[in-house]
Amino acid sequence: MTEPEVSSLPALAFIGAGVMGRPMIANLRKAGFALKAYDRSPAALENLRSDGVTVADSLAAAVAGADVVVTMLPDTPHVQSVLLGEDGIGTLLPTGTLVIDMSTISASGIRAIGQDLASRGVDLVDAPVSGGVRGAIAGELSIMCGGSPEAFAKARPVLEGMGTTIIHAGDLGMGQVFKMCNQLMVGVHIQAMCEAFALCRAQGGDLNLLRETLMGGAAGSWMLENLGPQVIAKDDSAGFRIDLQLKDLRLAGEAAFEKGLPLPGLAMATSLYLEARAHGEGSNGNQAMFRTYDRLTNQA
Amino acid sequence: MTEPEVSSLPALAFIGAGVMGRPMIANLRKAGFALKAYDRSPAALENLRSDGVTVADSLAAAVAGADVVVTMLPDTPHVQSVLLGEDGIGTLLPTGTLVIDMSTISASGIRAIGQDLASRGVDLVDAPVSGGVRGAIAGELSIMCGGSPEAFAKARPVLEGMGTTIIHAGDLGMGQVFKMCNQLMVGVHIQAMCEAFALCRAQGGDLNLLRETLMGGAAGSWMLENLGPQVIAKDDSAGFRIDLQLKDLRLAGEAAFEKGLPLPGLAMATSLYLEARAHGEGSNGNQAMFRTYDRLTNQA
Amino acid sequence: MTEPEVSSLPALAFIGAGVMGRPMIANLRKAGFALKAYDRSPAALENLRSDGVTVADSLAAAVAGADVVVTMLPDTPHVQSVLLGEDGIGTLLPTGTLVIDMSTISASGIRAIGQDLASRGVDLVDAPVSGGVRGAIAGELSIMCGGSPEAFAKARPVLEGMGTTIIHAGDLGMGQVFKMCNQLMVGVHIQAMCEAFALCRAQGGDLNLLRETLMGGAAGSWMLENLGPQVIAKDDSAGFRIDLQLKDLRLAGEAAFEKGLPLPGLAMATSLYLEARAHGEGSNGNQAMFRTYDRLTNQA
Amino acid sequence: MTEPEVSSLPALAFIGAGVMGRPMIANLRKAGFALKAYDRSPAALENLRSDGVTVADSLAAAVAGADVVVTMLPDTPHVQSVLLGEDGIGTLLPTGTLVIDMSTISASGIRAIGQDLASRGVDLVDAPVSGGVRGAIAGELSIMCGGSPEAFAKARPVLEGMGTTIIHAGDLGMGQVFKMCNQLMVGVHIQAMCEAFALCRAQGGDLNLLRETLMGGAAGSWMLENLGPQVIAKDDSAGFRIDLQLKDLRLAGEAAFEKGLPLPGLAMATSLYLEARAHGEGSNGNQAMFRTYDRLTNQA
Repeated sequence: MTEPEVSSLPALAFIGAGVMGRPMIANLRKAGFALKAYDRSPAALENLRSDGVTVADSLAAAVAGADVVVTMLPDTPHVQSVLLGEDGIGTLLPTGTLVIDMSTISASGIRAIGQDLASRGVDLVDAPVSGGVRGAIAGELSIMCGGSPEAFAKARPVLEGMGTTIIHAGDLGMGQVFKMCNQLMVGVHIQAMCEAFALCRAQGGDLNLLRETLMGGAAGSWMLENLGPQVIAKDDSAGFRIDLQLKDLRLAGEAAFEKGLPLPGLAMATSLYLEARAHGEGSNGNQAMFRTYDRLTNQA
Repeated sequence: MTEPEVSSLPALAFIGAGVMGRPMIANLRKAGFALKAYDRSPAALENLRSDGVTVADSLAAAVAGADVVVTMLPDTPHVQSVLLGEDGIGTLLPTGTLVIDMSTISASGIRAIGQDLASRGVDLVDAPVSGGVRGAIAGELSIMCGGSPEAFAKARPVLEGMGTTIIHAGDLGMGQVFKMCNQLMVGVHIQAMCEAFALCRAQGGDLNLLRETLMGGAAGSWMLENLGPQVIAKDDSAGFRIDLQLKDLRLAGEAAFEKGLPLPGLAMATSLYLEARAHGEGSNGNQAMFRTYDRLTNQA
Repeated sequence: MTEPEVSSLPALAFIGAGVMGRPMIANLRKAGFALKAYDRSPAALENLRSDGVTVADSLAAAVAGADVVVTMLPDTPHVQSVLLGEDGIGTLLPTGTLVIDMSTISASGIRAIGQDLASRGVDLVDAPVSGGVRGAIAGELSIMCGGSPEAFAKARPVLEGMGTTIIHAGDLGMGQVFKMCNQLMVGVHIQAMCEAFALCRAQGGDLNLLRETLMGGAAGSWMLENLGPQVIAKDDSAGFRIDLQLKDLRLAGEAAFEKGLPLPGLAMATSLYLEARAHGEGSNGNQAMFRTYDRLTNQA
Repeated sequence: MTEPEVSSLPALAFIGAGVMGRPMIANLRKAGFALKAYDRSPAALENLRSDGVTVADSLAAAVAGADVVVTMLPDTPHVQSVLLGEDGIGTLLPTGTLVIDMSTISASGIRAIGQDLASRGVDLVDAPVSGGVRGAIAGELSIMCGGSPEAFAKARPVLEGMGTTIIHAGDLGMGQVFKMCNQLMVGVHIQAMCEAFALCRAQGGDLNLLRETLMGGAAGSWMLENLGPQVIAKDDSAGFRIDLQLKDLRLAGEAAFEKGLPLPGLAMATSLYLEARAHGEGSNGNQAMFRTYDRLTNQA
């Protein structure tokens, strides 16, 4: 692989340097991008400085001179505030700037923001990721994108600095929709596994043997293969947090409600995750949903 | 592989020659077993005769002289009736006979039957299968067994005449439990896929692209890979029937209720399958659950 | 009201002298009926003797000479066993006998028993009750009956000895169906109240004020009026037991499944009652379902 | 009752003159209040003029000189826009003004608005109503209020011009919480009735007789008494619209999610209402949920 030609790469601003943003910034720099970063948290800025990143002391300073602005923020209101708020950057970006929002937020939210930016000649691509902190560090995120073909084409080289699978899912917002569908299935698959395990255990069966037996057949899932062992070992520590899973299930539920679509399976999974969090599992991995079934059978 | 020594093989009686039993009988005969078969349906007996199978004209005649009796029947009451009913064979079987029930029935039902047979010195193994008619014809069923190690050891050579994966799941009834857990996951996974597809479509997304995107990751499942294309193509014809899926979900629900275990995900999936059947999908493949979501969005 | 003419009253056998049967027997005797009673429990028989009741020492002895046999038993298998089992009374009853089964059991179960008895010229009425132990003691049960008009007409004077509201719901089994519908609504109404209370409390509201505000309007229910105060006072002791509520919800679920009818509201309520029982609330009143919501918000 | 002293009554502005607002304005005028009204819809203004109401041609003109501002708007964003938006009235109101928001909106939404107004010395009471258009016309609304005791005391005389039951539920937002709890119970009670009716009908029972039998007992509800006859008669026309019921269930679901509270009964009822609306029942009365059960049994 030859050295990237630095001169041909767009100048970046990166907004949001949390546990995901920080390693994503590191990988973009490794890929040769010049970037300025900003986060409203002083601690996050300090981390960036210790990484050698050029840090801006305001949103406005961060985006000054940027060809592409990348945002990686917690939820819809944060993205609205950064891009359209009173002190936001929407009005500062020159025509022709591309914004890539990599946050996981509402599909209708990102579409509304896109309409506003489009009226100022600014392009927007939504590009939520899967792969977690591990994928962010390894530069191996899966990135699901929505936006015009032209905007996606401009975004792709930047995204390739952070991930290995870059999908153009459709128009603006469709990256969010694909992400939601992913999370809906993840949530329900975990519940399916937990219910099968709970039934087998209540009937006196061996969970390891059950998992091995079911894994290759019609009941097989990534979850059964990859999180099944942790569920059985009662290892709740690792993986995707229940807090975050709940946020994603909420986004899916809202997107379904907006379209008048009843999704009772999603509703039940959401209810179970809420129950798990109410019992203090919020910062555990989403396989900790099994604790809820544990409590039912006094086998915790 | 050398020719099996016919003289060393146990003499079999096979009760129940429906769409599953008939090819299972054919494979046992190919494997060298001598067997007599019985079914209460004259049409089924006629089929067997045309296959060249030795047919008995009563349950009693079928089991006379048999070392091992195999039953493959629709539901719990049929197995109770054949083994313990007034005209049943339970009292006819000599001590040391092995009964292998390959029907998918209630775990507590098979355990109760086993207690009764044990008091007469007759062994019982429950051995429900997965793989469907196709697997039965190919002799490639997966067979999940419950029973004592000794009974399982005696049953295994017979089962190897019909399947390729023979699992000893645990004590009597555990074959049924494993089968239920399999079907619970199958049912909920299909619902998860249908809900993700319905959400994506309502938001304007491309289902083929969604499926390809999700397949390799945390949302991946055998269902998404194998039945996803049929769902998208609206091909409801093939696969495991909704009628039968409902029977299996009912068995799982009853087994959970007996243990006082709430399984809300299973309850929701059962509700959706009932809805699909109420709309006339009973004899379609279980991917036809998607029609229920179609109706909701008037895209059928 | 004049003294009943003892000579004109049918001779009764009463099978099943538990917490309900015992006071029902007492009221029938007060109403002037001659009766012999039987229960398989020696302790129950002892209670009857201390009440001055004529006790039979076998089922057969109890029903000898009876015009009307009343059964009050725990569940479907008990009724099947007493009426149709090997040592049961079905074959002992002369043509023209009337059986009144007051147990709460499966509608299809009682219909099957009725077909069998009808073939012997014995009439059957199903007559499950509501009103609980208190209603049984006061002789103020509500009794929902199924059977032919003729059989119901014969049963009515006996039933009037135990209850004040005697409804002819329809053909055999319809008493059970009405009872199930009652219990379905009871179970879901309690859940509705618990969810409203849980939401109000989580938002910081006053439950007594909420109850008073909602009681007279569109959200009003017998439950809100009568069990609401106990829920708020965390008095789980009195009322209809969760164990029994679960039995009735199961019967309703089975009756719906038999007709291919999805009832997701019933399924959810059943799930919640199972959860409550799994947490040890089985012998508490059904308002103890609120403990499940307590656990979710750590306010127990 | 003596004539109200007009001079002692506060001057009102009334924002929002839809099907509810218009008769509420009429009743306030009848009660002697001087008021100016505004609605962004020209047709609504024309209606007001034909009623003889003093109409303002802008929000600002409507509130000029008002002691109390009443708002009656469709949903949270409309209230946010009118009170806090760019062209909103929040900054125009002098210290000491009282705002009474009678819209049904989010509890957290109204609390946030209240914080903003409080910083400007403006009081806020939330006062959602029940009783529908009929209650609005008759001046017999039930009004559930949240706010400080002082603000409530100031609001009461105005509210008494529109309703007969005025409840002080608690702090700001608690009116909304009580309203949500009401609607949650309404929605689940209708589902409970529909499921009981569906079960009874599938089993061959008579719905009118069932309703009469259950009405007085533990399964009794306002819904069974008042909407039961319409459900049975398949009269979907009157009552509270499914569209509006869904909005209220959504508000309840969001308020529960904010507190991390799983409410599976609410989730199921919401799912069923969505299904009903997806089948075109949105503008029918909420008893039209029974059509969903009709479809399941092909008895529509």
